[in-house]
This record gives sequence, C-alpha cells and structure tokens, in this order.
Amino acid sequence: MATARLFLLLLLLSASCSAWEISIRMPTADRLEAEVVAPLIHALRPLLGSGGQLAARAGVACDSWRLGVEAHNVINWKTVPAKCEGYVGHYLLGGHYRRDSAVVVDEAIAYAETLQLAGNGKEVWIFDIDETSLSNLPYYAKHGFGVTPYNDTSFREYVAEGSAPALPETRRLYRRLLEIGVKPVFLTGRTEDQRAVTVANLRKQGYSGWEKLLLKPAVHGAAGGLHAPAVAYKSGQRQKLKDSGFIIVGNIGDQWSDILGEPEGARTFKLPDPLYYIG
Amino acid sequence: MATARLFLLLLLLSASCSAWEISIRMPTADRLEAEVVAPLIHALRPLLGSGGQLAARAGVACDSWRLGVEAHNVINWKTVPAKCEGYVGHYLLGGHYRRDSAVVVDEAIAYAETLQLAGNGKEVWIFDIDETSLSNLPYYAKHGFGVTPYNDTSFREYVAEGSAPALPETRRLYRRLLEIGVKPVFLTGRTEDQRAVTVANLRKQGYSGWEKLLLKPAVHGAAGGLHAPAVAYKSGQRQKLKDSGFIIVGNIGDQWSDILGEPEGARTFKLPDPLYYIG
Repeated sequence: MATARLFLLLLLLSASCSAWEISIRMPTADRLEAEVVAPLIHALRPLLGSGGQLAARAGVACDSWRLGVEAHNVINWKTVPAKCEGYVGHYLLGGHYRRDSAVVVDEAIAYAETLQLAGNGKEVWIFDIDETSLSNLPYYAKHGFGVTPYNDTSFREYVAEGSAPALPETRRLYRRLLEIGVKPVFLTGRTEDQRAVTVANLRKQGYSGWEKLLLKPAVHGAAGGLHAPAVAYKSGQRQKLKDSGFIIVGNIGDQWSDILGEPEGARTFKLPDPLYYIG
Repeated sequence: MATARLFLLLLLLSASCSAWEISIRMPTADRLEAEVVAPLIHALRPLLGSGGQLAARAGVACDSWRLGVEAHNVINWKTVPAKCEGYVGHYLLGGHYRRDSAVVVDEAIAYAETLQLAGNGKEVWIFDIDETSLSNLPYYAKHGFGVTPYNDTSFREYVAEGSAPALPETRRLYRRLLEIGVKPVFLTGRTEDQRAVTVANLRKQGYSGWEKLLLKPAVHGAAGGLHAPAVAYKSGQRQKLKDSGFIIVGNIGDQWSDILGEPEGARTFKLPDPLYYIG
C-alpha cells in the first residue's frame, strides 16, 4: 500500500521534473514568506529537494552528502557530485536553503541580543561576503550548481557586474547588529582589485555602516582566486583585528575556513553552502 | 497545478500519519539495505522525515533545526522542540539517519585508508559510545525522542540492561580500522560503575580488540551523568593519551563536545544526533 502511494507520488511529481530550470529566481524578501518560496519547483521539493530519495536510488544520497558537508565531515571536495546537480539546484532555489539560513541567523541574533557590550566601539562581528552577505546563485544557476569545476575567469566576470543579490537572512543579522551596537567587519577572499565593485554591490543590496572591508592583496588568477587557501589568511586577519584592540564577538560564513583557526571569535555561525568547498 | 498536486500528496500521506508509532524498530544490518529502510513509515519520510514542510507550517522547521544542530549553530539546547518529536522519530527510525551516518563513515574509512601508519601500535582512533558505537534509540523511542528532559535515573536503568544495539555504520568503521592496524579507544561519558555492563554490551554487539575503554570516575547523579560537562573531560583524556605516546589519527562522536578541544585528533567526524546536546 505504501509502495503504491509512493509510486503515485513519483508519477505525479516526475511530470514537472524538467520544468525547474525555467523557474530560476532568488527570493529577495527580507523575511521568508510562504508565497516567496512557492515557485514552480515547489511540488518537487519534498522528494528531490530534501528527501533525497531519488538521489539515493541513483547511488548518491545527496541530502546525506550535503549534511556531511555542513557538519564538516566531507571536506576537500572539488565539485558537487554530478548526480546531485538537480538536488542542489532545488535546495538552493526552493525554500529549503532560505529556511536553513533563517535558523542560523535566528540563533545568531538571539546570541547577539544576550551580549553585554562595553559600548566602546571595539566590538565587531566578522562577515564573509560570497554566499554569506551576497549570494552568487545567479552565477551558479547558470554554471551547473557546483557540478562543473570552479572557473576563476568567468566567476570574476560575474563579480565585476556587481549584481549579486543579498542573502536576506544575513542582511537581517547585519542590520540587527548595527542596532545593537556591534560593528560589522567584512572579511573576504575577494581581492583588492575587486574593492570598488564589491562596495557598490554591498551598498546596492542594503549594506552600509561597516567598520572595515578586508580584501586580499590584488593577485589575479588561481592563486588569488576564490579557491586560494583561506584558513590561514582569515585567521591571520582576525588576529590583526584582535591585536588592534577589537573584540570579535561573532563570526559568520558559509565555509568552515571562515570560522576555523584562532582567534575564531566568541561564537561562530556556519551558513549552508553545498556549492563549493574552500579549505 | 502545483498546489493541486501538493494537496493530493498531502491527502495521500496524511492518512498514514498516526501509524508510525507501531513501527518502531532499529534496522540492524551492517550495510544499509533497501528493504531494511522501508518500514511502514517509509511513505511519510519525504514529507515529514526530511522535507520538514509540515513542521515548517507548524512554526518549527524541524529539518532546518536539525541542520543547525549538526553544523554547531544551534547549541546548548535542553530538549528537542516539542513539535519536532514526530520528525525526529521518523528521521531516526527511517532510513535517513542510517544514510547520513553511512556518509560520515564512508568518509572516515576513505580517510583511514590513506594513512601512512608507523605500525608501532601507537596509532589510535577515539570512539565515543552512546549514539556513536551503541545506539540508545530503543530508550529514546519510549521517552519522546528527546522532547522530554533527560532523566538520569531511567537512562541509567536502560544502560544497565546492556541491550543497546550497535550503530552498524560505526561498527563497520571500527572493524575496518582493526584490519588497517589502527587501535580503537573508547572514550565515554559513561561512568566506571557502568564498566562491566558497557563491556558486555559492546562485546555482544560485535566490538572487540579495543586498546582502552576510558570511563569517567564513578559519580552517581546529575554531576556524573550524561549531561555533565564533556569538552574539558574528553580533551583532557585525549591529552593524557598523547602524553603517553599515542597518536590520535581519528576521532568520532555524535556530539561536538566529543571532537572539540585540543588535541582533537588528526581528523574528526561528527555523527548525526538530533536527540540531545552535551556541551
């Protein structure tokens, strides 16, 4: 009986399997609204976007792989498993990604609101940029959702457009911290030559009033690109902040390399990212 | 059209919503077989067990909460959100938990097989016990799947039965490590007075040949119970192992407190556990 139901379910849903590509759009509302997360692909999500049953039958449990990534068990991966392209696409473009991000940010705000601040302007919160403050989903939706190897040239071209939307949950945290009196510091793998477009993009997306925007020295190509080693660089920058008298009360990023390595910050938050891994 | 389909889907699945309690059983096969993970509750899983859509409508995105727990964003929680009891039950008793655990263990074995061992018998792998080597699902299935506060007395009574099943994925890792030549060390929050029953339970479940079984001093009650501080205790014990000349090549547990705190071990693995949090 259960099997019959499942087959009917599969039958109903498989009809719309080919339709998801035409519904690529990033919900932009600050709060997650039911209508925002109900695009064409909605009906697929319970099966492909989260259950991963179809993926499991194809030999890759995409939801389990994603959990492995988020819990830092699956590391040093180069690309998303080919069979998980559809899964990752559905996850990111449906409401699931937004819902997962909302829980992280709710937790971060609840924590921030408990802080006893000295009020001397030295308390900062570290924000990563890509897939944290800004979302590159419009790029990755056109480039196989992490299934194809990272292309520094085309990604830089995309960044140069300055068109990346905000991740609305992160912007909500950012604004709440400003209200509370914690100063945001951006710490990114983007390079100095991308400063102007990054500033413009952040401002356009509603970010303002940051304390610092720390970019890497302007080195073009792979060595200075998205996939250059990050743990040492980012923890080194945080150490410099600490040495300058700043107190890092919080730190949020989509990569474990954003939040590992002393000084991590008093508390760290890992946003979901099943698109790429930076070690 | 998508909405109509979703309603039909909901209608089909809601009929079996009340049936899951009678299907409580722990799959015991060493490898995850399709037939093992297809109990009565199977048809529910895409909706409740992973998608979390029903839970989200009830105001708690249980799957997002679980991800928050696994990625160490949601910390210091006392009990599972009340509305997530059904979700957590389905997650653990359906195939999802096993699938998630399998990915972690596959990754651990792949890592272990790359190790260049000195072969001097000093290379060890730390195993936590509860919800890592042994599963207390039979207990938690009768006690609200983490929704009710931890009860040290009744949990100790359960442990005293020595009836906990192995988590088959962990046992697979354990056996592979023995073949490779890495020695297992159990490091647990269980107390010395539970040594005999713990040894018997582990042996009965197919564990043998461990190097050490490290339990806490026998202190009854809350202070020595499951929820006593663990990071300091466990990292202290790992430091002692290191001081004795052991090399901790790996470390696996279901709690972040199993794997945080120097020396962590050369690589750490976090198994899923949406039942309880130990800080």
